Amino acid sequence: MSATVHLVGAGPGAADLLTVRAARLLGEADIVFYDALVPCEILSLVKTQRRVAVGKRSGRHATAQRFINKQLVDAARRHRTVVRLKGGDPMLFGRAHEEIAALQREDIRVEVVPGITAALAASAELRVSLTRRGAARSVTFVTPRVGEGERESTWIQAVLAADTAAIYMGAGEAEAIHAALIAAGKPADTPVAVVESASLPSTVHAFGVLGELPSLARSNGGPMLILLGEVYAEAVAARAERPRRAIHAA
Amino acid sequence: MSATVHLVGAGPGAADLLTVRAARLLGEADIVFYDALVPCEILSLVKTQRRVAVGKRSGRHATAQRFINKQLVDAARRHRTVVRLKGGDPMLFGRAHEEIAALQREDIRVEVVPGITAALAASAELRVSLTRRGAARSVTFVTPRVGEGERESTWIQAVLAADTAAIYMGAGEAEAIHAALIAAGKPADTPVAVVESASLPSTVHAFGVLGELPSLARSNGGPMLILLGEVYAEAVAARAERPRRAIHAA
Repeated sequence: MSATVHLVGAGPGAADLLTVRAARLLGEADIVFYDALVPCEILSLVKTQRRVAVGKRSGRHATAQRFINKQLVDAARRHRTVVRLKGGDPMLFGRAHEEIAALQREDIRVEVVPGITAALAASAELRVSLTRRGAARSVTFVTPRVGEGERESTWIQAVLAADTAAIYMGAGEAEAIHAALIAAGKPADTPVAVVESASLPSTVHAFGVLGELPSLARSNGGPMLILLGEVYAEAVAARAERPRRAIHAA
Repeated sequence: MSATVHLVGAGPGAADLLTVRAARLLGEADIVFYDALVPCEILSLVKTQRRVAVGKRSGRHATAQRFINKQLVDAARRHRTVVRLKGGDPMLFGRAHEEIAALQREDIRVEVVPGITAALAASAELRVSLTRRGAARSVTFVTPRVGEGERESTWIQAVLAADTAAIYMGAGEAEAIHAALIAAGKPADTPVAVVESASLPSTVHAFGVLGELPSLARSNGGPMLILLGEVYAEAVAARAERPRRAIHAA
């Protein structure tokens, strides 16, 4: 059996933010399994007609994941080049672990192609670096789990300890996130940036402070990233001159 | 003045891990300023003969940075498309802030093109996800500053608080990093992976535990990433069957 399953990062959404390797694999694949979040412009690079949409990220529970794993294993027995396309990067909040483990249990060769993760795309769009020499030397990337007790509060400790924080998959939970962080001691005047649909023409961003997060993080339905830290202080101070607006990708 | 300076992430090293946008800009640029760490294979995509090597990352202090800023401003006055190519991603330990600020002070248009950062390339190579559903929900990226007192120890707190940690630019300081983390309470048996020159044919990786870090992190001179966390436990347990070896990029 010489099939390879390639777990490929689709990046933040703009087709030209795919890696060159990812774009090539989309053209070469015999079959492609893709997340519902992957935009049409990226799917248009796929040459084969064998394209299988698999569950939305937010709706993917254990049963759905087992079904995806089985589909990948079956495809590897029938095809040579199988691509599993995931939004962002597969290894950061991409649940790649479950798919890699299932494939390796069946002795199927797995390759992973990294993708641009949302925090880097959002930073590029804002033109604000996540780090700053001498001032911001640590960045933490978390997914929040709100209101589920102590075991699940490690994301809060990670946010408190780092100079800059990027909170993924926080759309719809901004009120709870802001309450949990302030209750844990994060100052309400911590500078915040919210970026929705980074890299896409529909992108929107807003600057403010943690205390205002619920009003800043009003989602239009696209993937949303919440960024916190002193590196956003200048942008927050300048927001009178730079109101909330759409920025079009270059 | 219609010039744009593009701060472009060169990614981890493999030319096909550039984004499609980055590869296109290298072909279109009128002048390219590049870090000494950027490999020849990537520079070969540059069409213009105006290529300027700028200081090595590790040797770049304030004076050198001011000189780079001045070169970028001058180039923007003479050319239409200026590319500043940086290893990895510009917004994560790339010192982009200083260059963006200098350009914006002169009202020069800046665009940032994200790149694949080393931690994502290393994770792809190891086939070990930085996060794991229900078990690893936070990842911190830090640069260590060892032996410089309390103000500079925030990187340690960030590493302690997160489920998974990626330590950048730790080559040559493994002994001090391991001592500082153990002294701060990180267990000596914390699983560790060390990846050098991720994505390049010369890549090498090693698995072990924090207590062994100094012997695991023997550098061959390439950029080195130190990864810590329970997500590496299986790989550490399996290392008897998977000895330290070179993996060639697919």
